[in-house]
Amino acid sequence: MDQNQLKKLVGEKSVEWIEDGMIVGLGTGSTVKFMVDALGKRVQEEGLNIIGVTTSNRTAEQARSLNIPLKSVDEVDHIDLTIDGADEISADFQGIKGGGAALLFEKIVATNSKQVMWIVDESKLSQQLGSFPLPVEVIPYGSQKVFERFEAKGLNPTFRKNADGSMLRTDSQNYIIDLHLKEIADPHTLADYLIKQVGVVEHGLFLDMVNTVIVGRQDGPEVLEAR
Amino acid sequence: MDQNQLKKLVGEKSVEWIEDGMIVGLGTGSTVKFMVDALGKRVQEEGLNIIGVTTSNRTAEQARSLNIPLKSVDEVDHIDLTIDGADEISADFQGIKGGGAALLFEKIVATNSKQVMWIVDESKLSQQLGSFPLPVEVIPYGSQKVFERFEAKGLNPTFRKNADGSMLRTDSQNYIIDLHLKEIADPHTLADYLIKQVGVVEHGLFLDMVNTVIVGRQDGPEVLEAR
Repeated sequence: MDQNQLKKLVGEKSVEWIEDGMIVGLGTGSTVKFMVDALGKRVQEEGLNIIGVTTSNRTAEQARSLNIPLKSVDEVDHIDLTIDGADEISADFQGIKGGGAALLFEKIVATNSKQVMWIVDESKLSQQLGSFPLPVEVIPYGSQKVFERFEAKGLNPTFRKNADGSMLRTDSQNYIIDLHLKEIADPHTLADYLIKQVGVVEHGLFLDMVNTVIVGRQDGPEVLEAR
Repeated sequence: MDQNQLKKLVGEKSVEWIEDGMIVGLGTGSTVKFMVDALGKRVQEEGLNIIGVTTSNRTAEQARSLNIPLKSVDEVDHIDLTIDGADEISADFQGIKGGGAALLFEKIVATNSKQVMWIVDESKLSQQLGSFPLPVEVIPYGSQKVFERFEAKGLNPTFRKNADGSMLRTDSQNYIIDLHLKEIADPHTLADYLIKQVGVVEHGLFLDMVNTVIVGRQDGPEVLEAR
């Protein structure tokens, strides 16, 4: 199976965890897209009665096109389960997210969820975090100064840009600075440093947050209980 | 002198610290308005050559109308001195800011300044912080959940609204939640808690930040060196 087939495999597997009546957080990204397709099928074919809470305009559009009922995170009392992708997962189940620039809303939804599940193809697993560039969402005003501070600290920052060379804007109209770190020895210390920088809105370190990981392997989906 | 005259007094006094060639951070608020007027006068009458870095659309408009040259914080190499107001200053020179909803850009500019000066009328001084409601700037998506978390923690939150009852939006299109705390025993611990809440962009605690405070008193401006 190629990477896309592995993503489809875990996307379809994950919706087995969704039960009638649940409020479900819907992540963002290419793997989640397969999950939302599979969920839409269950809603249509089984009459599954759920409410989706989305993490991006993209996922909201897809869910609407599949007639999955949606509410905002502020309109629901709780979220039972959030299913999302991840860009990198370490051996101790810490994660980097934000490759799709939706990390802020993803983290808001995950924080308000009783259970969090990540679905990934096996290429996303690593011993230690850092091979995937760490995204940091920053307020545009002052972002050059934040960039310079990151540079001085040796964090190898780059601004994320659109294909046409313009600055990429998140759903909240902020910029993304990617930190090319290679390895992150102590994610908690880095997270603490980043969130305290004035102008930083959120970062892509998702620590102590995931409960279940489904990994797409050549011989089928593997379910890992993280915490 | 009434409160307005005290504000004018310190606004006019503060521009004495501004020297030719300086890059000057311009705060936001009713006291700063007097400072910017006085600065505009010096630019016009003395040919004072400075560059202003503003913290809000409001102050930018005023400065432009007075022909004060402006640059963004990202266009300058450094800021020599930022002059701003404050809503409350404790005996150990910690501050609460954000009554004018400009706390995010104010903190970004202050963080990038070599020297920070606050100008206040004497009513802003208190022994311990907390009599002024503490503003917290939050991402609209998920803000109800942040509000509920603050409520559960006994922080007495209220959403800040416009006169017509609609939600107030900051210059970054976020919401403000005001925390009615009466007293803040340990501002550093509270700041640490607030900044780590997912969905919080920035808060109004300005800690270990101000160098000089000018207080408007009935018998004239008092200059206090904080740190």
